[in-house]
Amino acid sequence: MAGTDHAQGRDWHGPQPVFVLVRPQMGENIGAAARAMWNFGLEHMRIVDPRDGWPNPAASATASGAARVLDQVRIDATTAQSVADLTHVYATTARPRELTKPVLSPQEAMEDARARIAAGERVGVMFGPERAGLENADVVLANTIITVPVNPAFASLNLAQCALLVAYEWGREVLPVARPEQKHRPANRVEVTRLLEALEARLDRADFYRPEHKREHMRTTLHNMFYRLDLTEADIRILHGIHRALADRHPTRE
Amino acid sequence: MAGTDHAQGRDWHGPQPVFVLVRPQMGENIGAAARAMWNFGLEHMRIVDPRDGWPNPAASATASGAARVLDQVRIDATTAQSVADLTHVYATTARPRELTKPVLSPQEAMEDARARIAAGERVGVMFGPERAGLENADVVLANTIITVPVNPAFASLNLAQCALLVAYEWGREVLPVARPEQKHRPANRVEVTRLLEALEARLDRADFYRPEHKREHMRTTLHNMFYRLDLTEADIRILHGIHRALADRHPTRE
Repeated sequence: MAGTDHAQGRDWHGPQPVFVLVRPQMGENIGAAARAMWNFGLEHMRIVDPRDGWPNPAASATASGAARVLDQVRIDATTAQSVADLTHVYATTARPRELTKPVLSPQEAMEDARARIAAGERVGVMFGPERAGLENADVVLANTIITVPVNPAFASLNLAQCALLVAYEWGREVLPVARPEQKHRPANRVEVTRLLEALEARLDRADFYRPEHKREHMRTTLHNMFYRLDLTEADIRILHGIHRALADRHPTRE
Repeated sequence: MAGTDHAQGRDWHGPQPVFVLVRPQMGENIGAAARAMWNFGLEHMRIVDPRDGWPNPAASATASGAARVLDQVRIDATTAQSVADLTHVYATTARPRELTKPVLSPQEAMEDARARIAAGERVGVMFGPERAGLENADVVLANTIITVPVNPAFASLNLAQCALLVAYEWGREVLPVARPEQKHRPANRVEVTRLLEALEARLDRADFYRPEHKREHMRTTLHNMFYRLDLTEADIRILHGIHRALADRHPTRE
């Protein structure tokens, strides 16, 4: 399938942000993060000092169809080494930090990332360990903080969910929504008019528009409804058939 | 804490979409969906014909801090019953369907939902069972389809992830990003100018600007850098101190 959305002029197989998992604990979470990334076309993961070492069978098992992400993963001993070659780093945090860093939402951050990548920068996003999140010593290395707008009463996004949201925001501008070609085209105004004319002829024969002083109002309401609805040409044909069948079964003065 | 983001004029404790889980299988996934919802302030869940009945201890255990969602859950026998009172329903699907339905991204759908809710509509989002997704008989009941823009080569969002993304898109316009008040204010231009003047005086005494014909270019480059960086008043003070300390330890013709 094509990796290029020509309509948007973007090749989403092009340069992309690196996701850096800092001291992750459970292999299942690493695998889940890999799946989260690959759902949105991201495949460059780095891991800093994984608690259970590497390789990690639980990570591979959970990653499953997203194995290619783990196949390319880079393991580093320290966060500083992991981000050494990058020119702009975002640190994801749930709670505010004492450090002076600009704070962006995932959407703002990925818009910013796309612009930087288009300008040739090498960009990364850091995610902290499951329990405590990133330490200040990690956040210090970043240029910018990403905080997800969440319910202040319940902020409990885990590693894979955080990675999913950032990856989703990356993909939102570059991945196409699969809009299947609609099988039936929308009806045009004259097709609706013809339906109304046929319908109203039958309604007249059935003495629908009574009493006489309400006729104009009823006709306007009926017309307004049919013109308002987003009818397809198939809908129009179905409605013609329904009206005909009803009138034929209940014949009036034809 | 305040539930109203006054700056946006929105009360995110107000009317919200209902999330309808259709024939979900595993309790853990129901609990995870509850957490996904409550992370973004959504608390109205309905479940159609859960495979393992109700209540479900695995769901409650997984929901944990999002228990309030399950406490309010409504169980229905059929999808039609579950959406009966709603005026606009979105069906989440991964693969295109043969049915004529408009297809929106999560962002477009939640923008549409917010407008409808503001106009007094009752809105719901349907999510299908883990393995097969919604059946066409469920999708038929919807007005609109939501499809997440994903990697065509790997589209594997599960129930909780799908719910997370739609809930996130709902919240994105109504929940505030927690931007902590920055402890230090940005420096203004004259503070940068004073730093440069002090620095250049020291650099001149250290014969930094040599050879003479390169002086203007070097000064322009230095000025450009300091004016470009987003320095805070604290940064300026630190830099003054650094320059002073360096010059004092390496005194030149003062």
